[in-house]
Amino acid sequence: MPDISFETNPSCYRHLKLEAGGDRARIILKVDENGGLRPDYQLKLNSYDLGVDIEIADAVNRLRFEHPGVSVVAISSGLADVFCAGANIFMLAGSDHGFKVNFCKYTNETRLAMEEASALSGQRYVAALNGVCSGGGYELALACAEIWLVDDRRSAVSLPEIPYLGVLPGTGGLTRLVDKRKVRRDLADIFVTLAEGVRGEKAVAWGLVDALIPRSRFAEVVEQRVEKLIAASEPGRAARRGIVLDALGPAVSESEIRYRHLTLTLDHKRRLAGLLIAGPSTAEAIPEDAARLGADWYPLRLFRELDDALLRLRFNYPEIGLVTVRSEGSLDRVLEIDRQLDARRADYFVNEVLLLMRRVLKRMDLTAKSFFALIGDGSCFGGFLLELALAADRSYMKASGQAALAIGLLNGGTLPMPNGLSRLATRFLGDPNHAAQLIAAPRHYEAGEALEAGLITDAPDELDWDDEIRLAIDERLSLSPDALTGMEASLRFAGPETMETKIFGRLSCWQNWIFQRPNAVGPRGALKLYGRPESPQFDWHRT
Amino acid sequence: MPDISFETNPSCYRHLKLEAGGDRARIILKVDENGGLRPDYQLKLNSYDLGVDIEIADAVNRLRFEHPGVSVVAISSGLADVFCAGANIFMLAGSDHGFKVNFCKYTNETRLAMEEASALSGQRYVAALNGVCSGGGYELALACAEIWLVDDRRSAVSLPEIPYLGVLPGTGGLTRLVDKRKVRRDLADIFVTLAEGVRGEKAVAWGLVDALIPRSRFAEVVEQRVEKLIAASEPGRAARRGIVLDALGPAVSESEIRYRHLTLTLDHKRRLAGLLIAGPSTAEAIPEDAARLGADWYPLRLFRELDDALLRLRFNYPEIGLVTVRSEGSLDRVLEIDRQLDARRADYFVNEVLLLMRRVLKRMDLTAKSFFALIGDGSCFGGFLLELALAADRSYMKASGQAALAIGLLNGGTLPMPNGLSRLATRFLGDPNHAAQLIAAPRHYEAGEALEAGLITDAPDELDWDDEIRLAIDERLSLSPDALTGMEASLRFAGPETMETKIFGRLSCWQNWIFQRPNAVGPRGALKLYGRPESPQFDWHRT
Repeated sequence: MPDISFETNPSCYRHLKLEAGGDRARIILKVDENGGLRPDYQLKLNSYDLGVDIEIADAVNRLRFEHPGVSVVAISSGLADVFCAGANIFMLAGSDHGFKVNFCKYTNETRLAMEEASALSGQRYVAALNGVCSGGGYELALACAEIWLVDDRRSAVSLPEIPYLGVLPGTGGLTRLVDKRKVRRDLADIFVTLAEGVRGEKAVAWGLVDALIPRSRFAEVVEQRVEKLIAASEPGRAARRGIVLDALGPAVSESEIRYRHLTLTLDHKRRLAGLLIAGPSTAEAIPEDAARLGADWYPLRLFRELDDALLRLRFNYPEIGLVTVRSEGSLDRVLEIDRQLDARRADYFVNEVLLLMRRVLKRMDLTAKSFFALIGDGSCFGGFLLELALAADRSYMKASGQAALAIGLLNGGTLPMPNGLSRLATRFLGDPNHAAQLIAAPRHYEAGEALEAGLITDAPDELDWDDEIRLAIDERLSLSPDALTGMEASLRFAGPETMETKIFGRLSCWQNWIFQRPNAVGPRGALKLYGRPESPQFDWHRT
Repeated sequence: MPDISFETNPSCYRHLKLEAGGDRARIILKVDENGGLRPDYQLKLNSYDLGVDIEIADAVNRLRFEHPGVSVVAISSGLADVFCAGANIFMLAGSDHGFKVNFCKYTNETRLAMEEASALSGQRYVAALNGVCSGGGYELALACAEIWLVDDRRSAVSLPEIPYLGVLPGTGGLTRLVDKRKVRRDLADIFVTLAEGVRGEKAVAWGLVDALIPRSRFAEVVEQRVEKLIAASEPGRAARRGIVLDALGPAVSESEIRYRHLTLTLDHKRRLAGLLIAGPSTAEAIPEDAARLGADWYPLRLFRELDDALLRLRFNYPEIGLVTVRSEGSLDRVLEIDRQLDARRADYFVNEVLLLMRRVLKRMDLTAKSFFALIGDGSCFGGFLLELALAADRSYMKASGQAALAIGLLNGGTLPMPNGLSRLATRFLGDPNHAAQLIAAPRHYEAGEALEAGLITDAPDELDWDDEIRLAIDERLSLSPDALTGMEASLRFAGPETMETKIFGRLSCWQNWIFQRPNAVGPRGALKLYGRPESPQFDWHRT
């Protein structure tokens, strides 16, 4: 498969229509059957592949920045009698293991972004199901704040992955059933083993949907319900002015991807990549009307670039095992922006930028590559940029007297990890007082102080720096990539678990296991044989 | 491999010595190199296989019941300069996937039982490491309340699984590092990628061990430290009188395993097993000296039998996919015992019986088989026995007017799941008030009432009963066993996560994945090639 680009915009959408006006928006799914990323499958019945999900992710992000007045987003289908049939089975059956795992991770992140928008941006997603809603289609609905199902004695919600395919619903379905919607476990057990799903009053009684709408009045009642939600939303939203998210358009070559503030270098042979962040060239005050800063504002632009780079790393460069993270620029300017972001967080646009940072940093936490932060002379890891060093598996700082890092106001919990804690609180889980003290007195640290405070892993002196870093990198790159993935996923998330960590750490992990099992992906496995006349042949041993 | 028996006793131990006297005990590991369960490996350097772990589990359990006066249990090694080298690699490399997964699950349960004894039975486990302590050896130490390491400039603790074998430490190591001992994640990252491990002051500074003891005074200082812990323990313990846990000695045939209060029937062809519990024949009052009831006391005997049956199901009958759970007997007598257990929980012996029940029920929660409770006429699912129906994935109750179940006092939280909640609270996560009301007014329920209260999944009437049950069983048994395992592990544990659920749901699950990957178990995988001159060849793609 050629390199995947994660940039798009509504004028290029092939699979959905984004209608946004004033206080409401609609995302209408009408997947182009012949618009799949690969030619070996057709996207029938609004089934989706990564290309469709990239458009959904783009729409969710644009609604926040470009249409901040919107308080309700209704997701519906442009097909008659079908909402969405879920991830395309033939696409899955024809994908290699790594792609399947990364595809599920990405769709999960997009669903979580919808929930975050509902919870923290005041943009409530509702699913208006006008027909069949199965598998990933129902999981898309589960990520909405409300689910409304047409009542036509035919349309059901279902998760048929287990009976039909021998795999799990891969986009949070099982976890959201019992942990978000709190469906009783034995009813959930019946529901997910029943290929035809559940409809009508039973779907409401079991907690699978929130309301039924008669077929004859579907559009009208959806409209009434949307009105009601809008009436209950924060007043004054409609006056918000959006910005335009321009294309990032990085310069991509064999050896690097160059963005405005970020360069990703790629040493394919060594399986080593480098992220180099250029600090801000200005730190102008945030104007009264913050949105006037637009898409060029340093923190917004940088984190959009970082997001794009992380996704390209995951999908386009599976052979890369380790990513170094460096920065160059004015630490003071970074901290000035950090202060401004903190001071103006009540502004909707500033809030959206902070939420974007938070999502991108979580994307880094969940990326199956090793990250080493290298903090050298002239680096600018402060405040929100320090989070990148804290997200790294290890951090090395040159004991040169020139290198400095700094804790800023945003390190105190504005940018939590998927476990709900700040990266500092997670780092010092054993000594919460220490974390609190560091946050209470934000300041600069040179290498010795940073080591003493536990903010970095090691501080080699200038003479040893090159050798120690090279050795650490080479050693890391000699280890089993699978063991590293399991190890990093375990060590990065100390502390509490949340629905989010459960989805990535428990559900997805079981799915990864199943995605390797002959019962699913072997020549006689259920996923491989789907749509063919043969029945799967299982090895019946329970594990 | 022939059927595995999980019963043993100290006079039969081949691999360890249990010395228990008065207020202290020692477990001395001295593994018989030639005493492995299979002939294809030797248990050098105190490395262990399932047979060794069965002895450890037996010792931990016997100490609670037979030596209740003991307040400190020191685990040490009978070999010079070696504590324990962990799970035997050649045993792992020669085991099939299902065995590896079940082996790790069992060892994890044993480690958790040690922690439970430290926390809830007042028997604190301490690890006195007189030498090399690596892999599962260090994980055994991690399950202790304190870890003391000899300071001899040589002996290190280590988790070399990732660099040496390309797999994860499989017995909770990664989770306990960051979640129990709260080792900083970047230090943990270095530690688990460093084959030689960490020793001396650094091991203390990083939080890997609690104290160093000079080699020359090792035995003496261990003794002093044990004394100190004993001095701080609950007074009066030493007067407790133990009971003797006799052998269960079930009658095992091709088609059933018959215990005193429990029969496990096996329909290998249908892949269906049945657990039938016989209710108590008496419900005599608990005497002042409760321990006089001894090992014959119904609840103790029954749950020991159930534990044995669950382990045999896991290891000896991998083809069994579904287990029905039925009971026959006096519901009133069960509830009388339930009341007595609740009223006398302050007694150490009664407490131990309750803790055993709790462990066995957790073992059921964690067993990768489907469970359907079938509640027919004359059944006795009340109180602690009702937990078996609540632990089942589904429960069917005959609407005959004769069948009844009952909530008892022990359903209120005495027997929590691994997530820390009672099974009723987990079941009604969406309606905590309902759970609280049910618990506040323990009573009998006939089928209609039980269905209304949400205590059962369905209540077919007598005419439909046989057909509906057969259909439900056949449908279940037609599904992919792997998908069911992932599904059940996801649906059973709604609600909070704990270190325990993290170990089974996150860490073990990543390990299961890795245990399938060619990088570990393929012909050129690291686990397969361990001890051979060839180097592993990895597929470097990160997933």
